[in-house]
Amino acid sequence: DPSLKVFSLNSNPELAKSIADHIGVELGKITVSHFSDGEIQINIEESIRGCDVYVVQSTCAPVNQHMMELLIMIDALKRASAKTINIIMPYYGYARQDRKARAREPITSKLIADILQTAGATRVLTLDLHAPQIQGFFDIPIDHLVGVPILSDYFEKKNLEDIVVVSPDHGGVVRARRMADRLKAPIAIIDKRRPRPNVAEVMNIIGEIKGKTAIIIDDIIDTAGTLTLAANALIEKGATAVYAACSHPVLSGPAIERIQNSQIKELVVTNSIPLPKEKQIDNITQLSVAALFGEAIVRIHEQQSVSILFD
Amino acid sequence: DPSLKVFSLNSNPELAKSIADHIGVELGKITVSHFSDGEIQINIEESIRGCDVYVVQSTCAPVNQHMMELLIMIDALKRASAKTINIIMPYYGYARQDRKARAREPITSKLIADILQTAGATRVLTLDLHAPQIQGFFDIPIDHLVGVPILSDYFEKKNLEDIVVVSPDHGGVVRARRMADRLKAPIAIIDKRRPRPNVAEVMNIIGEIKGKTAIIIDDIIDTAGTLTLAANALIEKGATAVYAACSHPVLSGPAIERIQNSQIKELVVTNSIPLPKEKQIDNITQLSVAALFGEAIVRIHEQQSVSILFD
Ligand SMILES: Nc1ncnc2c1ncn2[C@@H]1O[C@H](COP(=O)(O)O)[C@@H](O)[C@H]1O
Ligand SMILES: Nc1ncnc2c1ncn2[C@@H]1O[C@H](COP(=O)(O)O)[C@@H](O)[C@H]1O
Repeated sequence: DPSLKVFSLNSNPELAKSIADHIGVELGKITVSHFSDGEIQINIEESIRGCDVYVVQSTCAPVNQHMMELLIMIDALKRASAKTINIIMPYYGYARQDRKARAREPITSKLIADILQTAGATRVLTLDLHAPQIQGFFDIPIDHLVGVPILSDYFEKKNLEDIVVVSPDHGGVVRARRMADRLKAPIAIIDKRRPRPNVAEVMNIIGEIKGKTAIIIDDIIDTAGTLTLAANALIEKGATAVYAACSHPVLSGPAIERIQNSQIKELVVTNSIPLPKEKQIDNITQLSVAALFGEAIVRIHEQQSVSILFD
Repeated sequence: DPSLKVFSLNSNPELAKSIADHIGVELGKITVSHFSDGEIQINIEESIRGCDVYVVQSTCAPVNQHMMELLIMIDALKRASAKTINIIMPYYGYARQDRKARAREPITSKLIADILQTAGATRVLTLDLHAPQIQGFFDIPIDHLVGVPILSDYFEKKNLEDIVVVSPDHGGVVRARRMADRLKAPIAIIDKRRPRPNVAEVMNIIGEIKGKTAIIIDDIIDTAGTLTLAANALIEKGATAVYAACSHPVLSGPAIERIQNSQIKELVVTNSIPLPKEKQIDNITQLSVAALFGEAIVRIHEQQSVSILFD
């Protein structure tokens, strides 16, 4: 269908290529470069007049660069008479700034929603938002795809014995419950508490983990501090092995070193954020969400429901 | 007046301090830092409820970083109940992308205007826009201050003899005319032409320059290619000395080297963009626009006209 176009920006070119392959189209022709002073220059090199355009861009690091690239691309598409401008944003940067935790804080994930719409986005497709409430920040359709099935299927094929799915905090219990249902396993919850101010946090574990294979599941793994402490606590309290899974491998700062020196046997992630060479270590496995987004595009384009991809 | 607050972001802390000094206020307390993954974290550390807030931020390089910082700050101020949010943006990044010069180009300077307003800006103060039409991209008040008086006054004090003010292209003639009026000097125009395709540009000069001291004036000096070629042409055609002046010293890529190796005796710029150490060379003089913006703030706050600052 010539009215369906997929473009890649700079965050995720391999995923974009796989999505295009899945649908059976070529990636749209575009050049994204920088002027001498660092300003972004975008040239769309084919007509998109009247087309349904899908732009693949995660707002992972460098987040501000990737965000401005996306906004400028949307502006160019709007002025070039695209029929619809659909943003495939597997990783939604600034999602953790989703509320005022203290006085005079910004709510940057709402700002992002607002400026995407101002630029001209007509639909957003994303994966495992840090808080599902971010959907309500948009006044355009937003499709919120879920990574749990992909991650669970991978573990299912490993035929691990006596699994327990572990949520690293109380906020992640729903996600752990979903994975546990798929793996027909029980759940446990890490209950971090600071007994008194200025005393180190204690990792209590709610649920039975002794003699079991633990799979910790989270949405984002960033510096991997909580994750590796949780893995220690699980082993200490009698788990026989610890695996980990997340949708978004942010893996900033000391993350890779921490994971390498940790009790974690394998960390399974998606390619919502690509892993540069130095982060491609032996015990990290990356699964593709290309088919998931590809399927969503096909269904949206054929005006079918995509809700089947939500669980 | 405690209801008037001035905050600095990261682009231009010294200018912000001078503006605050000019008005006689302390800079507002704020911390701008980065999370481990590079996302911007802003904490406004004093109440601004009901205040008229001025935020100083040029969107010079790194432009995308500075832009996102500004948007997030505006969002935080809006949610903290600022009465008005006034952006002092001495250098307006992306101003050169102000029209579709080719098919399917973005108009990024309009995008910037749109997202500043979406974030919550209520007024913008800026200096020498690349095109004055950018004022029309805003639906909020915009005050467009002019650097020519500051630059002209500096040259006036030098008591140069037999001046001619030179516009480096046809787009800059109005600016050159303004400076020439102040210096009671004639103008000349560099008329770049490409005689045939694939033949080097020729720099014709319209106007009398022989035996005169030329002052080339432009709004932005970026890579300094055109500027240094123009200086060569002027000397070749008989000018006795060449000075240059601009509002916005972008000075990217080879600019500093080119200026050092050029015929330009002195380049006079403003501090709309700060010059890092390696750009502070002997023949560049930087003049402050702090008093100009300070005066504008005082007049706006006292509900007086600022049009006196426009020329
Ligand atoms: N990029 C980031 N890296 C680390 N922490 C963040 C980031 N963005 C926001 N936060 C903080 O994370 C907290 C929210 O995380 P959570 O409690 O897991 O929803 C808030 O206190 C935010 O200030
Ligand atoms: N940051 C930039 N650096 C160099 N050229 C630019 C930049 N932004 C836009 N342009 C180009 O500069 C031209 C406009 O400059 P002007 O003709 O001087 O108004 C357009 O063709 C733009 O594509």
